[in-house]
Amino acid sequence: MDLNEIVEDVRAAMRSELGQGAVADYIPALARVPIERFGIAVTTVDGATYASGDAEEAFSIQSISKVFTLTLALNKIGDDLWKRVGKEPSGSAFNSIVQLENEAGIPRNPFINAGAIVVSDVLLDPMSGAQAIARIERFAGSLANSHAVGIDDEVARSEAETGFRNVSLANFMKGYGNIKNAVTDTLDVYFHQCAIAMSCRELARAGLFLASGGYDPVSGEPVVSAERARRINALMLSCGHYDASGDFGFRVGLPGKSGVGGGILAIAPGKASIAVWSPGLNSNGNSLVGSLALERFARATGWSIF
Amino acid sequence: MDLNEIVEDVRAAMRSELGQGAVADYIPALARVPIERFGIAVTTVDGATYASGDAEEAFSIQSISKVFTLTLALNKIGDDLWKRVGKEPSGSAFNSIVQLENEAGIPRNPFINAGAIVVSDVLLDPMSGAQAIARIERFAGSLANSHAVGIDDEVARSEAETGFRNVSLANFMKGYGNIKNAVTDTLDVYFHQCAIAMSCRELARAGLFLASGGYDPVSGEPVVSAERARRINALMLSCGHYDASGDFGFRVGLPGKSGVGGGILAIAPGKASIAVWSPGLNSNGNSLVGSLALERFARATGWSIF
Amino acid sequence: MDLNEIVEDVRAAMRSELGQGAVADYIPALARVPIERFGIAVTTVDGATYASGDAEEAFSIQSISKVFTLTLALNKIGDDLWKRVGKEPSGSAFNSIVQLENEAGIPRNPFINAGAIVVSDVLLDPMSGAQAIARIERFAGSLANSHAVGIDDEVARSEAETGFRNVSLANFMKGYGNIKNAVTDTLDVYFHQCAIAMSCRELARAGLFLASGGYDPVSGEPVVSAERARRINALMLSCGHYDASGDFGFRVGLPGKSGVGGGILAIAPGKASIAVWSPGLNSNGNSLVGSLALERFARATGWSIF
Amino acid sequence: MDLNEIVEDVRAAMRSELGQGAVADYIPALARVPIERFGIAVTTVDGATYASGDAEEAFSIQSISKVFTLTLALNKIGDDLWKRVGKEPSGSAFNSIVQLENEAGIPRNPFINAGAIVVSDVLLDPMSGAQAIARIERFAGSLANSHAVGIDDEVARSEAETGFRNVSLANFMKGYGNIKNAVTDTLDVYFHQCAIAMSCRELARAGLFLASGGYDPVSGEPVVSAERARRINALMLSCGHYDASGDFGFRVGLPGKSGVGGGILAIAPGKASIAVWSPGLNSNGNSLVGSLALERFARATGWSIF
Repeated sequence: MDLNEIVEDVRAAMRSELGQGAVADYIPALARVPIERFGIAVTTVDGATYASGDAEEAFSIQSISKVFTLTLALNKIGDDLWKRVGKEPSGSAFNSIVQLENEAGIPRNPFINAGAIVVSDVLLDPMSGAQAIARIERFAGSLANSHAVGIDDEVARSEAETGFRNVSLANFMKGYGNIKNAVTDTLDVYFHQCAIAMSCRELARAGLFLASGGYDPVSGEPVVSAERARRINALMLSCGHYDASGDFGFRVGLPGKSGVGGGILAIAPGKASIAVWSPGLNSNGNSLVGSLALERFARATGWSIF
Repeated sequence: MDLNEIVEDVRAAMRSELGQGAVADYIPALARVPIERFGIAVTTVDGATYASGDAEEAFSIQSISKVFTLTLALNKIGDDLWKRVGKEPSGSAFNSIVQLENEAGIPRNPFINAGAIVVSDVLLDPMSGAQAIARIERFAGSLANSHAVGIDDEVARSEAETGFRNVSLANFMKGYGNIKNAVTDTLDVYFHQCAIAMSCRELARAGLFLASGGYDPVSGEPVVSAERARRINALMLSCGHYDASGDFGFRVGLPGKSGVGGGILAIAPGKASIAVWSPGLNSNGNSLVGSLALERFARATGWSIF
Repeated sequence: MDLNEIVEDVRAAMRSELGQGAVADYIPALARVPIERFGIAVTTVDGATYASGDAEEAFSIQSISKVFTLTLALNKIGDDLWKRVGKEPSGSAFNSIVQLENEAGIPRNPFINAGAIVVSDVLLDPMSGAQAIARIERFAGSLANSHAVGIDDEVARSEAETGFRNVSLANFMKGYGNIKNAVTDTLDVYFHQCAIAMSCRELARAGLFLASGGYDPVSGEPVVSAERARRINALMLSCGHYDASGDFGFRVGLPGKSGVGGGILAIAPGKASIAVWSPGLNSNGNSLVGSLALERFARATGWSIF
Repeated sequence: MDLNEIVEDVRAAMRSELGQGAVADYIPALARVPIERFGIAVTTVDGATYASGDAEEAFSIQSISKVFTLTLALNKIGDDLWKRVGKEPSGSAFNSIVQLENEAGIPRNPFINAGAIVVSDVLLDPMSGAQAIARIERFAGSLANSHAVGIDDEVARSEAETGFRNVSLANFMKGYGNIKNAVTDTLDVYFHQCAIAMSCRELARAGLFLASGGYDPVSGEPVVSAERARRINALMLSCGHYDASGDFGFRVGLPGKSGVGGGILAIAPGKASIAVWSPGLNSNGNSLVGSLALERFARATGWSIF
């Protein structure tokens, strides 16, 4: 099968799986997304895209945005970031605070909520919140090569209104001095980044630099150094799916980052960037059908990194 | 540089690093190994081996043996193993018991001590302890293609005499019904497997099946299915270095498994199996100079999987 | 020795102990209190008071106020309170959040910070913050039978400015639905109650109802039922000194509640209410000299409840 | 009501409560005890005993024996004991190992299993196991003033055969150097002490020294110093019912120690020693009906220490 056939095969095979899991319901804008949606898009390092299903429909990428903000933060302050956030899987849920208390306010990795909040704090300083948010939005749009990429204000507002756990995490770290700006400002950035909306096509395009050594193979523009791109991929592999990261690596064999909106971005280094979307989540908060789709895709392509 | 040059370069570069860290001192046989030892061996999938330093000297592979017993257990009971042991990084030290209490006696993964004890328990049943130990010894020797591979009885005895924490872990799981045999029998297998001694040359050869899709590329014999080989590699990546697994993946970019004797086995899928050895350990219990050597090696070869 | 002599003896014996420990320094108003201060006051159920040292000097009673707000909350909603807060020692520090995550946002007891914040939330609803604060202030003044009792606004402001951990705890519980009002409103009540200032003489008088079956033996007015008074005493015994509650019960043998301002209120049921104050804290955050003073006092009077 | 009437009233009131909870079923000898049993005995400091129900039937006192072994250990090595075991409530289940890992093998208090195992270890050294066990048995019999008190060998054997968690705890502490003797020898003492069988009448008599300042008020013989007796009572109050200790103090208001055989020993200092027995346990492993009986008894007598 060529890539086009594989993508269609995956879409066809997922049809009977749709409806499983549960759509995130903590905010209205996510809760009303139909659970039967499924999209997949693959962009190869030569710039070609293969897509199927609801691949043009924008969805809330949520925690997948942490990959892009991590990239920005590394470009901004380099390895100093690792003084404020770790590189290890947490062995806990995405929003756990236990680890923070045991480790003096240093989050385990930049992909759990606490770690991503620190990353937001890095991006904020010394910009204003509005500037930091605009910077993230522009970066995502530029990577996706699309003017349609933007922040869903309703989602951002809902996140802020219901995000007590994130407020708790941020204040906890502030108590340890690991948040430098006002907590409300830092969280404003964080809640907005989580509200970025993209389609699978845009998301696959946006992740392409991670599959091609850190530069955009279409434009030829550098995004991060090759070493940083590899390291971001390594973190996605070990920490990208919260306390189910090991299982994702085991079954799919590709670095990936999931979001509670049902999206997953996976990277096949040297080959392609893959985006899937299906809003039904498993008990770990990762897209149930999206994971199955990637497992089938990886088996068909033989692109497992292992 | 060709592989021969790279191996020599790594050895040369490590000379000024030797002596760092601390040799494991909980048993005499490990404590008396000179900290300045350093060996490296690389066996490529075409069967060629490149070695330097103390690559012919046998050392205690300790927890690296968990890769081989996991392979045997998967061949024996297949995916039923995953009912008794998880696939996730633990976020804790190699000998932590906290996670076991929180998760009803199911160890997080087969590479922490508790998980490997469950694997030993699988291999024991219905064999006698002596048979199970002999089976593991033969398997390791066969993979290494060497008659010299064997179990160091002094080490095994010392492990048994001082291994109170492992006795604790095993009894804890027995209380939850996750150890089927008598605890002393299961631990006897576990303590013996940890006492396997190999040289870097032998270890690199023994790991080769994981670099070549599960079969021995020299003899052509199957060891495990290609999918299982990939999955073992995935587990090594996410769990092979205890609570420093993320950092190893980040810096080296290869699946690896360390042992407290100072050895590390790393796999470059499709390319080679690499063994390094230097007995000085860092604070996480992984070979300090061995990790540096693999980081340099991976950079020079460009073999990072990311 | 009669009570007067005992009180003087305790004061004299403590002279050589003064200066030990460390004054709380997280807010300026506490940090500048001289560490050599020491006061003691004993009010017996017949209304007599025996005092010595700096017994007339007002200090920040901090967490001792939790005894008074618990009393108010029990009078307000009765045993329904125990649906939102437990009655068990936490085994953890006063500001730990680990227990909250493990137990779904229900604090272990009303004397750790999280529990007292829930109590504040109970008192707030449906009053306004200003009314709730005024209610607490009046209650404390009335119990102390003093117009001088009041809230130190500088302290309250400083608590609010630096209390990130408490903000974190409150938002964490809000995420579990265990805070009913706006977090900022609830915390405003909490920060103000902690800022109540009293002298030892006033504090001993204020605690008298707990020594006399729940009513004020001087005025004859009921404060709480006899059973509730006993139960508040029981909670003070098992939970009043955070993770050093066992040791306080062991050494002093009286129910007691400490505050980070250096005060301790102890109750000898049927006999007297005792207040001591000395700002140097031990590593658990309890008054070091205050604890020694109470230990000596309990031994001299034979008032241990055990 | 006089004491005789109160005891009969409690028995009568408990009739409709019998059958609640669950009998411990981890060993056959406990599992086959009829759940409807109920006994109560009160021995006052003047030596009189008031008993009702199945007060003459021997039952396995299990963890209540920890009170007696603690007494022996304090008499043997004094306050040095507190270097090896704490005095704080654990906030965890009776057999939790989490706290041990976080606190370097020092159990929180002598009434959780780990702490009692350390106490057994103290009693063993330098006696033989048989001598230590005989010493404990004689001490219990002497306190109970009864030749009928003895160790149930079937129970002891069953404890040893099924006590994997206790084996785990002991080995864990051995790994930290907090068990001095061979683990099997220490546990042999521990398992035998748990198998002491007594009737309510005997148990109430045995606890009398704790109600009377440390000496036996009938024989006039000293058992422990008055201060130690008070301190043992304090520990019973804060730690005697595992993670329900706070609730027991709250509801009953007396120091107490429960056992999984359904017995509870409670102390009214200066007044009496009370034993109740009913084998149905609540979810915390404490006698459900026994707790209700003591609550009613304490209310009727007004003997709450608070």
